Amino acid sequence: MNMMVFEYGDHAIVVDCGIMFPDTELPGVDIIIPDISYLREIRDRIRAIILTHGHEDHIGALPYVLDEIDVPVYGTSFTLALVEPKLMEHGMEESVVLREMKPGAPFDLGPFHVELIHLTHSIIEAGGLAITTPVGTVIHTGDFKFDPTPMDQKQSDLHTLADYGRKGVLALFSDSTNVDRPGITPSERAVREGLSEIIAGAKGRVLISCFSTSVHRLQIVADLAHQYGRRLGFLGRSMDQIARITQQTGKLHVPPGLVAEPQELRKLPRSKVMMLLTGTQGEPMAALPRVAVNRHRAISLDPGDDVVISARVIPGNEKSIFRMIDHLYRRGAHIHYEDGSQPSVHVSGHGSVEELKLMLNLVRPRYFVPIHGEYRQLFRHMEIAQQVGPGAEEVFLLESGDVLEFDEEGARRADRVSVGRVCIDVGTFDEVGDVILKERRHISEDGIVIPILAINEHTGRLEVPPEIVSRGFVPMDEAMDLMESARQVIFKTLEVSNTEEIADWGVIKEKIRTALRRHFDQETGKRPMVLPVVLEV
Amino acid sequence: MNMMVFEYGDHAIVVDCGIMFPDTELPGVDIIIPDISYLREIRDRIRAIILTHGHEDHIGALPYVLDEIDVPVYGTSFTLALVEPKLMEHGMEESVVLREMKPGAPFDLGPFHVELIHLTHSIIEAGGLAITTPVGTVIHTGDFKFDPTPMDQKQSDLHTLADYGRKGVLALFSDSTNVDRPGITPSERAVREGLSEIIAGAKGRVLISCFSTSVHRLQIVADLAHQYGRRLGFLGRSMDQIARITQQTGKLHVPPGLVAEPQELRKLPRSKVMMLLTGTQGEPMAALPRVAVNRHRAISLDPGDDVVISARVIPGNEKSIFRMIDHLYRRGAHIHYEDGSQPSVHVSGHGSVEELKLMLNLVRPRYFVPIHGEYRQLFRHMEIAQQVGPGAEEVFLLESGDVLEFDEEGARRADRVSVGRVCIDVGTFDEVGDVILKERRHISEDGIVIPILAINEHTGRLEVPPEIVSRGFVPMDEAMDLMESARQVIFKTLEVSNTEEIADWGVIKEKIRTALRRHFDQETGKRPMVLPVVLEV
Repeated sequence: MNMMVFEYGDHAIVVDCGIMFPDTELPGVDIIIPDISYLREIRDRIRAIILTHGHEDHIGALPYVLDEIDVPVYGTSFTLALVEPKLMEHGMEESVVLREMKPGAPFDLGPFHVELIHLTHSIIEAGGLAITTPVGTVIHTGDFKFDPTPMDQKQSDLHTLADYGRKGVLALFSDSTNVDRPGITPSERAVREGLSEIIAGAKGRVLISCFSTSVHRLQIVADLAHQYGRRLGFLGRSMDQIARITQQTGKLHVPPGLVAEPQELRKLPRSKVMMLLTGTQGEPMAALPRVAVNRHRAISLDPGDDVVISARVIPGNEKSIFRMIDHLYRRGAHIHYEDGSQPSVHVSGHGSVEELKLMLNLVRPRYFVPIHGEYRQLFRHMEIAQQVGPGAEEVFLLESGDVLEFDEEGARRADRVSVGRVCIDVGTFDEVGDVILKERRHISEDGIVIPILAINEHTGRLEVPPEIVSRGFVPMDEAMDLMESARQVIFKTLEVSNTEEIADWGVIKEKIRTALRRHFDQETGKRPMVLPVVLEV
Repeated sequence: MNMMVFEYGDHAIVVDCGIMFPDTELPGVDIIIPDISYLREIRDRIRAIILTHGHEDHIGALPYVLDEIDVPVYGTSFTLALVEPKLMEHGMEESVVLREMKPGAPFDLGPFHVELIHLTHSIIEAGGLAITTPVGTVIHTGDFKFDPTPMDQKQSDLHTLADYGRKGVLALFSDSTNVDRPGITPSERAVREGLSEIIAGAKGRVLISCFSTSVHRLQIVADLAHQYGRRLGFLGRSMDQIARITQQTGKLHVPPGLVAEPQELRKLPRSKVMMLLTGTQGEPMAALPRVAVNRHRAISLDPGDDVVISARVIPGNEKSIFRMIDHLYRRGAHIHYEDGSQPSVHVSGHGSVEELKLMLNLVRPRYFVPIHGEYRQLFRHMEIAQQVGPGAEEVFLLESGDVLEFDEEGARRADRVSVGRVCIDVGTFDEVGDVILKERRHISEDGIVIPILAINEHTGRLEVPPEIVSRGFVPMDEAMDLMESARQVIFKTLEVSNTEEIADWGVIKEKIRTALRRHFDQETGKRPMVLPVVLEV
């Protein structure tokens, strides 16, 4: 859910616009986007949204934000190619202005002079931003690593970082994701060796699952398929889409005749088949998880086929991933994943400690702000920055909503702005409010009980005995006795209430709610939601 | 949720009786116990429940199972000491027979000759079982590692394993938990070095959180407190309880004057304070998580205090643990946990690959059955067993409910027995049935809508317009319009129904449910539970 605002005078730019995925603590929520109350406040000042790269946690909230904040979006050609289908899904492709940006081609947005600095990451065409203002230059790294041997030979632009460092940088905002890892993150090229070893030894099909946006990895797999004389298929909606876009735009190089449709693959000998699939996180509707339970239309596994999961386990997804892996084992496949005991089938896209130090040493900022990480990671990044001499004048450990103010004299914390998360039900494009979520959680803990009273509008008396329905509370067989006793509680509550109380629905409902709550707690130890309804007949 | 049944003729013994902890996919469920339908079937034949050690996943379901299956329970002195408070909690301490077992003191249960073989594990007094029957001896390892330098100098009993191996073992059932780890699991002693380094450098308080049942580790911490001239406090219910039991029974050796009550600790200089706390998994009510948010009655943290989390991250708990760690950082504490970049503050209690091979080579079983692990782990353990020469005649990859049959001729799979899980709400001791869970999940996804119809019992007509209440569905402001349109749908449904349909509540309820479901899906894209109620007035 990355998003940062830079302001100068009456002008503002927004860097990144990401989503987060919820866990099961938020039932019925599909994605989480940033609360943009503050953007609404400064709506008139915003000049642009600038995207550092095309991962969901940097671009996913665009359709929701652009719906309210109508500004141009800047990104690299590949980043914008990933944004386009999102806008189309929401019918916004006509109304939104997309502007391509390139390293070495800086541009101005009001008082901001913005230069994209190419940096390596797991996705192609990623970069940091050097934003120069009248009070100085700030550098925002985006997500990065210093891969010395990237697949496309486009190393991180150390020279431009060094130039800025020499000229003087006011503040550096730097990625903290892998601050817990010592040393240097291995090059993407290491994956080639790991995969090559597996494919060389494979007798049956080879299925490789990775993030569809990891175009470097798609290239590695395509190269290896060619080298080992296998045809290559793309399975899963986003894999198919990105394979198409990248081939059309020359970002993925595939020799003619290599790619095969799923139908063709089915007819080929197993030893001639290789596939790239979605579903590394065990998402139930993605390609690999469906293959795992033998419910994929186009492909089934035979014992001895090789399956590679070339991605990290995103925290929270352990259960669905390992469930999928267990199913793949039941199919008799050889499974290769990051468990430490295999040749490397995945490397991270984020720099480790020594790379973070290199960034600090190149940029030599006056102020340092660790970003992209949990508090403990920002804290460690702060400690690292303090070790690196000559060192920044001050490190600011900021949390979401904190404001940092720069002027001729220096930097200091200012007031906070309002931030938070907004839960979205994708099916409806709707926000799922806190009240709704609280209700769902309450009901899902102990169920719901609805006592219904038909009260005669003239006499104020019950017309018929109260009806009580419940769900998610107690099993039917126990419910009978319990509901009978609950009915007695309602009678008793009405008996001890005077006519005025009964006439006031609010009062009588609350009295019944309280009495039943106590009754259920005593009888069952449970605290269902109790929701009395009064019908005046 | 470990449990295994061994049967011979009309006799059966049950090995272990564990629970599992649920994740948020099972709302309102506190623990999961095994479905014991099969134990009920063979109730009259069961001679005993034998416990290999005292961890929850081996003993936690005892009160629930003993409630129905009344048999003696065998365990080591420490294991039984952990069982006793559980029985007391359920008022069963009088009715259950506990029998202590010791290594080197075999006993008979009908045709079963049972010998406990001491093996090292993270808990003291753990072991494997050699169960000799007329058709041969089977060995069940329980959880184990081969720690060459355990804290209490009680190494795993290699000699007895070797004796059985020489005499000939029919089948080995062996722990697969760490089959993914190459080499040998470090000795518990390694933790002493890691902790010692931290304490030597500590200026303020030192708080160490570990599982209270890890008595070796409690001993290490007590020894280090003594060595570094600090007083030691025990915080958290189970930590306090186990510290007391183990000191009384001589299993934990603490010099006089070392232990301090929390009140005393508060008055001591910070550099004289050390504490052992519960809460390694971020459980909200345990000691360390409360300290982290500064809500512990007896203790608060100051910047510069050291906090050690000396335990593994149990999968599924990542979020609550890292949330706690972030809070500890906010308190300004130095945090030490297993993140790979620290001196070792935790080692596993399960043997790695080379230890699994050693077990296989010592026991040399005719048949091998990997246990304790997910399918992928059992699979890998099978592969390892196949590598180890001379090798078992056959490896059986069994899943829960599978039955393996042995006789003079050999071993083979037999019919399965019914197994499964039973969800328990601890507050009520009650089973939470599948129907209830399904209802809760449905409601928690999209909410619930209850349309209420008061129908005149004579005319079959509505007495008043239908009342509709909903929870967890749409926000109040949208609900008004939506409920009005839903009311129209109900009117229309009644209009097109004939009198017989209306007279039959089942039919009319179903028609309304179907119509409203379609209506809500069209209008909101959501599928709440729709629960019509008809009141005859």
